[in-house]
Amino acid sequence: MFARVDHIGVAVEDLDAAIALHEGTYGMTLVHREVVEAQGVEAVLLDVGEGHVELLRPLSEETPVGRFLAKRGPGLHHVAYQVADVQATLSALRERGLQLIDEQPRTGIRGSRVAFLHPASSGGVLTEIVQPPEGH
Amino acid sequence: MFARVDHIGVAVEDLDAAIALHEGTYGMTLVHREVVEAQGVEAVLLDVGEGHVELLRPLSEETPVGRFLAKRGPGLHHVAYQVADVQATLSALRERGLQLIDEQPRTGIRGSRVAFLHPASSGGVLTEIVQPPEGH
Repeated sequence: MFARVDHIGVAVEDLDAAIALHEGTYGMTLVHREVVEAQGVEAVLLDVGEGHVELLRPLSEETPVGRFLAKRGPGLHHVAYQVADVQATLSALRERGLQLIDEQPRTGIRGSRVAFLHPASSGGVLTEIVQPPEGH
Repeated sequence: MFARVDHIGVAVEDLDAAIALHEGTYGMTLVHREVVEAQGVEAVLLDVGEGHVELLRPLSEETPVGRFLAKRGPGLHHVAYQVADVQATLSALRERGLQLIDEQPRTGIRGSRVAFLHPASSGGVLTEIVQPPEGH
């Protein structure tokens, strides 16, 4: 069902410092940067193997990532698993009793199709499923 | 420097429930189970692509994962990146100014060689580097 860890999402207060850490110190390659208004974030993707690290800077305090930062500070925010078909996977997970944040897939970073599962039924882990765009 | 996301570590209160979620609902394969006394956890590895999910149940409240659960509840605990040579990577990261939890590599789950970086200098993310054992 899940092909691999697609990315880990990291909530950051200082995007430039987080990029310096991941690019300069860890040697990862920055491959994408995008403001995702619907999620209230500026997001940066860095390659690591076939997966990514996704840095998330909230656009304001009144966003999910802004509230996360206020409550818990910077750090691991979510894990995303890659799937071949986000719609079919979402249906299968719903049938298995999982509580969903997104009842329908929506467009994520870089044109991916994504949906979030609710941490209440995923062991406290905010979990995303991602169907990558063609070519990624 | 980092080959891929080796695993994400998830702190759990109820190991059986977490296994049921990852095996039954997510369809991952349980590949290893081990009590790691030195880290104060019972750990379970499940395959996802070339990486893993590592479920961590603390052996007592007075362990790092036990204190994490008391403070934050179950959820994402750390990310681990795979490296070819944990000793060389640790030296390189120290030279680049990273604060380390482990000044020297130690033995992790399944005979891997591991070291933890301090979240104070890794953006609030508890970060592990892992040199897998031969054959994994």
